Amino acid sequence: MQEKIKKAKVLLEVLPYIREFYGKTFVIKYGGSAMINPELKEMVAQDLVLLKLVGINVVVVHGGGKHISDVLDKFGFESEFRDGLRVTGDDEIGVVEMVLSGKANKDIVTLINKHGGNAVGISGKDGPFLYASAYRDSKGYDYGHVGTIDSVDTAILQNLEKGSFIPVISPIAGGNDGKTYNVNADIVAGKIAEAIGAEKLIFLTDVQGIFRDFENKKDLISSISKDESIKLMKDGIISGGMLPKVNSIIGSIDAGVKKVHIINGTLEHSLLLEVFTTGGIGTEFHI
Amino acid sequence: MQEKIKKAKVLLEVLPYIREFYGKTFVIKYGGSAMINPELKEMVAQDLVLLKLVGINVVVVHGGGKHISDVLDKFGFESEFRDGLRVTGDDEIGVVEMVLSGKANKDIVTLINKHGGNAVGISGKDGPFLYASAYRDSKGYDYGHVGTIDSVDTAILQNLEKGSFIPVISPIAGGNDGKTYNVNADIVAGKIAEAIGAEKLIFLTDVQGIFRDFENKKDLISSISKDESIKLMKDGIISGGMLPKVNSIIGSIDAGVKKVHIINGTLEHSLLLEVFTTGGIGTEFHI
Amino acid sequence: MQEKIKKAKVLLEVLPYIREFYGKTFVIKYGGSAMINPELKEMVAQDLVLLKLVGINVVVVHGGGKHISDVLDKFGFESEFRDGLRVTGDDEIGVVEMVLSGKANKDIVTLINKHGGNAVGISGKDGPFLYASAYRDSKGYDYGHVGTIDSVDTAILQNLEKGSFIPVISPIAGGNDGKTYNVNADIVAGKIAEAIGAEKLIFLTDVQGIFRDFENKKDLISSISKDESIKLMKDGIISGGMLPKVNSIIGSIDAGVKKVHIINGTLEHSLLLEVFTTGGIGTEFHI
Amino acid sequence: MQEKIKKAKVLLEVLPYIREFYGKTFVIKYGGSAMINPELKEMVAQDLVLLKLVGINVVVVHGGGKHISDVLDKFGFESEFRDGLRVTGDDEIGVVEMVLSGKANKDIVTLINKHGGNAVGISGKDGPFLYASAYRDSKGYDYGHVGTIDSVDTAILQNLEKGSFIPVISPIAGGNDGKTYNVNADIVAGKIAEAIGAEKLIFLTDVQGIFRDFENKKDLISSISKDESIKLMKDGIISGGMLPKVNSIIGSIDAGVKKVHIINGTLEHSLLLEVFTTGGIGTEFHI
Amino acid sequence: MQEKIKKAKVLLEVLPYIREFYGKTFVIKYGGSAMINPELKEMVAQDLVLLKLVGINVVVVHGGGKHISDVLDKFGFESEFRDGLRVTGDDEIGVVEMVLSGKANKDIVTLINKHGGNAVGISGKDGPFLYASAYRDSKGYDYGHVGTIDSVDTAILQNLEKGSFIPVISPIAGGNDGKTYNVNADIVAGKIAEAIGAEKLIFLTDVQGIFRDFENKKDLISSISKDESIKLMKDGIISGGMLPKVNSIIGSIDAGVKKVHIINGTLEHSLLLEVFTTGGIGTEFHI
Amino acid sequence: MQEKIKKAKVLLEVLPYIREFYGKTFVIKYGGSAMINPELKEMVAQDLVLLKLVGINVVVVHGGGKHISDVLDKFGFESEFRDGLRVTGDDEIGVVEMVLSGKANKDIVTLINKHGGNAVGISGKDGPFLYASAYRDSKGYDYGHVGTIDSVDTAILQNLEKGSFIPVISPIAGGNDGKTYNVNADIVAGKIAEAIGAEKLIFLTDVQGIFRDFENKKDLISSISKDESIKLMKDGIISGGMLPKVNSIIGSIDAGVKKVHIINGTLEHSLLLEVFTTGGIGTEFHI
Repeated sequence: MQEKIKKAKVLLEVLPYIREFYGKTFVIKYGGSAMINPELKEMVAQDLVLLKLVGINVVVVHGGGKHISDVLDKFGFESEFRDGLRVTGDDEIGVVEMVLSGKANKDIVTLINKHGGNAVGISGKDGPFLYASAYRDSKGYDYGHVGTIDSVDTAILQNLEKGSFIPVISPIAGGNDGKTYNVNADIVAGKIAEAIGAEKLIFLTDVQGIFRDFENKKDLISSISKDESIKLMKDGIISGGMLPKVNSIIGSIDAGVKKVHIINGTLEHSLLLEVFTTGGIGTEFHI
Repeated sequence: MQEKIKKAKVLLEVLPYIREFYGKTFVIKYGGSAMINPELKEMVAQDLVLLKLVGINVVVVHGGGKHISDVLDKFGFESEFRDGLRVTGDDEIGVVEMVLSGKANKDIVTLINKHGGNAVGISGKDGPFLYASAYRDSKGYDYGHVGTIDSVDTAILQNLEKGSFIPVISPIAGGNDGKTYNVNADIVAGKIAEAIGAEKLIFLTDVQGIFRDFENKKDLISSISKDESIKLMKDGIISGGMLPKVNSIIGSIDAGVKKVHIINGTLEHSLLLEVFTTGGIGTEFHI
Repeated sequence: MQEKIKKAKVLLEVLPYIREFYGKTFVIKYGGSAMINPELKEMVAQDLVLLKLVGINVVVVHGGGKHISDVLDKFGFESEFRDGLRVTGDDEIGVVEMVLSGKANKDIVTLINKHGGNAVGISGKDGPFLYASAYRDSKGYDYGHVGTIDSVDTAILQNLEKGSFIPVISPIAGGNDGKTYNVNADIVAGKIAEAIGAEKLIFLTDVQGIFRDFENKKDLISSISKDESIKLMKDGIISGGMLPKVNSIIGSIDAGVKKVHIINGTLEHSLLLEVFTTGGIGTEFHI
Repeated sequence: MQEKIKKAKVLLEVLPYIREFYGKTFVIKYGGSAMINPELKEMVAQDLVLLKLVGINVVVVHGGGKHISDVLDKFGFESEFRDGLRVTGDDEIGVVEMVLSGKANKDIVTLINKHGGNAVGISGKDGPFLYASAYRDSKGYDYGHVGTIDSVDTAILQNLEKGSFIPVISPIAGGNDGKTYNVNADIVAGKIAEAIGAEKLIFLTDVQGIFRDFENKKDLISSISKDESIKLMKDGIISGGMLPKVNSIIGSIDAGVKKVHIINGTLEHSLLLEVFTTGGIGTEFHI
Repeated sequence: MQEKIKKAKVLLEVLPYIREFYGKTFVIKYGGSAMINPELKEMVAQDLVLLKLVGINVVVVHGGGKHISDVLDKFGFESEFRDGLRVTGDDEIGVVEMVLSGKANKDIVTLINKHGGNAVGISGKDGPFLYASAYRDSKGYDYGHVGTIDSVDTAILQNLEKGSFIPVISPIAGGNDGKTYNVNADIVAGKIAEAIGAEKLIFLTDVQGIFRDFENKKDLISSISKDESIKLMKDGIISGGMLPKVNSIIGSIDAGVKKVHIINGTLEHSLLLEVFTTGGIGTEFHI
Repeated sequence: MQEKIKKAKVLLEVLPYIREFYGKTFVIKYGGSAMINPELKEMVAQDLVLLKLVGINVVVVHGGGKHISDVLDKFGFESEFRDGLRVTGDDEIGVVEMVLSGKANKDIVTLINKHGGNAVGISGKDGPFLYASAYRDSKGYDYGHVGTIDSVDTAILQNLEKGSFIPVISPIAGGNDGKTYNVNADIVAGKIAEAIGAEKLIFLTDVQGIFRDFENKKDLISSISKDESIKLMKDGIISGGMLPKVNSIIGSIDAGVKKVHIINGTLEHSLLLEVFTTGGIGTEFHI
């Protein structure tokens, strides 16, 4: 019985958080190890269903993980990478879309629904709700069907929210040129969070967050303001691969997203831990 | 961190229950020690708020506890009891109503709202939603302003539910004769549960439930069907003071209430334990 | 038959008023003799029901009348008054709340519903909708649990209006400090009228209104603008106990209440007379 | 002041009736002298607006009065009457429709709106909501464009009710044969009352009602059941021109209309007198 | 089969237009030959029904055509015209209203409904929705019951739109002086289009539109901006009877109407041709 | 101009059909050549958008066409066919799902949206809305992941309809066993049509319909009742591969689908031709 009472108390500890986030929307970028490890996958699905049931509108944006490379291999494509982006040819984009929207997407939908959720998997082409155009880097290099988001039409997301469904979004979008574009899932999640004025944008990653002592992975920063993070970038404490990510997070905050979180998706139930415990487990960015 | 993860897992254990009861209505009869002990009072309030936040419509019906006698004393009334019922005179009913609707009721409302709920305290006169007439026992004895429920108009309850408020109900009702009646709170809870077709009717009591071996308080019955309980009454295993209660429970089940629970309100967080754990902690009656 | 026709003509005389106020909200401060005299009580209840039935949303705020002193006496409290305010101790406030919310409030609800209305009695704790803090006079004197309104959350009022209920409000509010406060009913009525942008705020008092010749109670002012009333205060024509009341009325008009009325509640059907006859019976303040 | 208070009391006398009929629908057949005498016309308009404002949905069906003959004369048509019905030729129906829908109808609309109502004048062709075919008497005689109602589509009436408009209906309907039909307004009113399940169907006529002693116009029957009225017809007490009217009334009651009234429209405010006074002024038929 | 396929392709050509105008409102001034010629009348009715079915909210405003003079003749009135306006006396206005609202209006309603539409014929008195006062020309000449529109209350139009009805409007309005006014139908159409912020205001006329070479009816202008049309007036290319019309069109555009069209109603299906074909058939005015 | 007028007339020919089907739902099984030929694909997309815009709710169910075999080949799977069904192994089903939901589905969505529609592509896993179990033939042979539909939850379809989206459905469903099933698209279309009580179920096939003289493809049957088609099967006129199809059609009619059509998808705009022309182009089954 004492065991049971202890459990009840745990439930009640989350009361203030449930109250705070009731009816709010969280956009969750789902990727990395949490999308590969079977146990973690089940846990993420459970976490999402719980968040939805306690009144939080969750919107999931996923990446493609390792599936894309596997299938491109089967088809005999040799991928060229440039600055971490796969240069995507006219023939490859069809395969990339097929894997993202037909495999990665439906796997997540299946798992969420297995745990009692009501997920609906769509890509940016459905609705349509994401409009993209060709990405060019600063040197003007053409990455083929790698896209950048031009605009977001939130009609389908609002429609699914009214029906209490969980949208699971594959980062594929059509362009006005009639072409299909593969867009970086982090960017898609950010643009959606901005378009719907999300309460939280949460990145499920393979890192723990931002450290004051990055080299030694010591002194994790739990919560940081936009201004402080700009200062840390100037001071070189946030640097390297984190720079574009933090810049993009600052952009989302400027565009009206209340809080942006980077959390460690390799931890069990990292989503619940970040949302429902004091201090959370990763780094939270705010105004 | 392991501590935090354990807590997340506790949260997830309740997922199937939250799903099952989402949007359903529980009528909770609140009385006994759980209404006297300050710690228990806080816990009940927390439990009610949590149930509401995870999507369960809770309707609270309370008794008067010891307050009534205290105040009647101050006013110099000497209460006559008969078969456990206070014979209530024309002068006393005003005091009884005042204590129930102005003190007991508002105390509960205050506590629920302290924990972030949105309780609204009403009596059967408000709306009006409970219609009563004078109670007569089998020998025709008149108990003054002790009443029996003639009908329930659920309009105000539906209205408060639409606004996401928690109705807290004082067991006072007006009669067509223009008189005020004090009705047994168990009966009020049962009639309301029947009128709105509640999923659950839960009695927060000072006993643990129904025992197969009543004398030794051994072999608590976790779940029992209506037919079995009739048999236990015939066999004398359910007897004494439990007889009218179980008869009334059977009436509620016949009138469409899905499940009726007797639970031990002196246990911490007994409501959560009964609703969210396997087997629960008290006795559940079903068809 | 001529008698009947004359009556029909009376009905038709009110047509322009019904049309003018259809769908508007009147906040009515109910107190004084009209809350004591049994015949007047019945008449006020009838008037309120009629106003509601012809499409006016009425919100009633009541005082405590003589009940409070009576019950405090029974409990053996000796009340200290200061500047007309009862200094309310920690023990007394419970009794004050009990009488206001459990007796005065329910008496009014009962009477309104007796005449076919659908009243619902609540205090500022229900919802919760009134937030108070301790009142301090200009010299900083502490009146214990006498409160002042900090904010009004109109959600429960809007909810009850949707359900066509008449809210009857007891002037009790909770504070952020967890304490219970007794607030002057005139102030509660004013704050509510301001918060919902009422068409009219009507004070049922024991005086006839504002006189140009106050001493001789001659030359009742039927209608007066805010600016004129400021002038009358400067000129000393409005003076004494009327000063704070008129100042508060001016505050309500500045905060968006269209018209504020002081009427004589000791007159039969004073509410109907003020609302439905040319010139009315009391004093009306406007911009 | 006493005068004013007396008026307030008159208002309150109608409270029980307002409560009883709130949200119900009355179909009012408007014709006879009440449609000719200018003072009566104004009074009927006032009565209708008052009924609407106190929450009764009124639907007005009017006849054509003397206008039709006047205009047909101007056009040089000589009307043939047969059994009280104008045999209406192909050329005459256009004039009849024009007068009914363009003059009689708009006159009533204008008067109602002058008194603050929101009348909308339509004929059975609008919507369309009345479907008619050619009337044949028992001997098969063809009356040209005199029609009989085949069906009623209540969509436009429901739509206008939602918008709080008062429908004023000209008794013209189109047929499936593409022709225009003039239907007896009493029949139109009856069919509409049946189709919408009206609470009351009221005929504003030039007679006082049904008398037990018809010849001497003595012993007006205030209220009579369907069965009694059948008996009175058998006994010859109801006879002559009243027979088809009472038969049609019985038909409406059988089809679900709660009460049917015959009242004397030549009395001032006869509508208010019948609806809002005990006993009323005419004859009421009920089940 | 090829014939059928060709037809399908025609359907598809209108796809972009249907998409563009879905849910938008067109106010159509219906008059001239298209209201006299029986074949054209049928075609206009068909066109209106089709526009409504593909999701365009059509509002029809009609003139009186030759009916008015015919009936005034029958009544023996001799009409005096001044600047093209019929000076309308106290006796004549009743006849004018009767013909417009009872004949012209109902003829159009009948035709639309014959083709499966759901037209409802009203005048500005219904609702009421048009408020007029006496028209005075620049020299102050009084035209009797010729009116000018003071204000438009769109409630009844919105109500009919919600019910998917097609409003057919007779250009008659009441004044605050209690008089009835006959207003030029072009002006009524313009005022309504402005009040509801119509997408298009279309005049079905007997001319083809605006020509650059007006004398020789050559060089029809398909589309012209407000500024260009002001220039053409200055240059004398738009002149004579077209001047007031174009001035009024410019007023409508300034008041928020997106586009105003003058089209040739003597062409078969001119409405569909203008709305659903590239370039249209008349002249379109835009910002 | 004459050309334009002819086109307008074509538009009007479809008026009666648009009226008849307004607000009704058509389930369209899309497969065969119409899903392969690029011109036909564009035309089908245009047809679907037009049907939607004129008020018909279209639901598209597609097959996989030749894509599946192509991709399975790339992956090195050798497909075993049995009775026309691909026996689908544990490894193959993932590929089949990926192609159906990620390629075939999104291709159709892209095309519909290119023509201005608002398609949303989902599979039976989304929602989830289709529940399947393993298919067994009459001899109990196991086809692996070939499934049969157990139930349909129409919530997501209703939700998308409310948002005016066109659902495009990939015939993949999850089972209670946690497995993924590939279900014959004809069966999926039939089950959905039955579950939502569709007005029409239309099969876009490569045949023209049912012939009385099947061998010579002569005497196409335009319309046939359920009873006649049973007779034709008995008489051997409907035989061979058509038998299961017609049996399934009869099942759909018995389950409440109003009409089932087999049409020739290789014809240009076959959908519009069947829906909007007299007689249509294929065979229509009805009760």
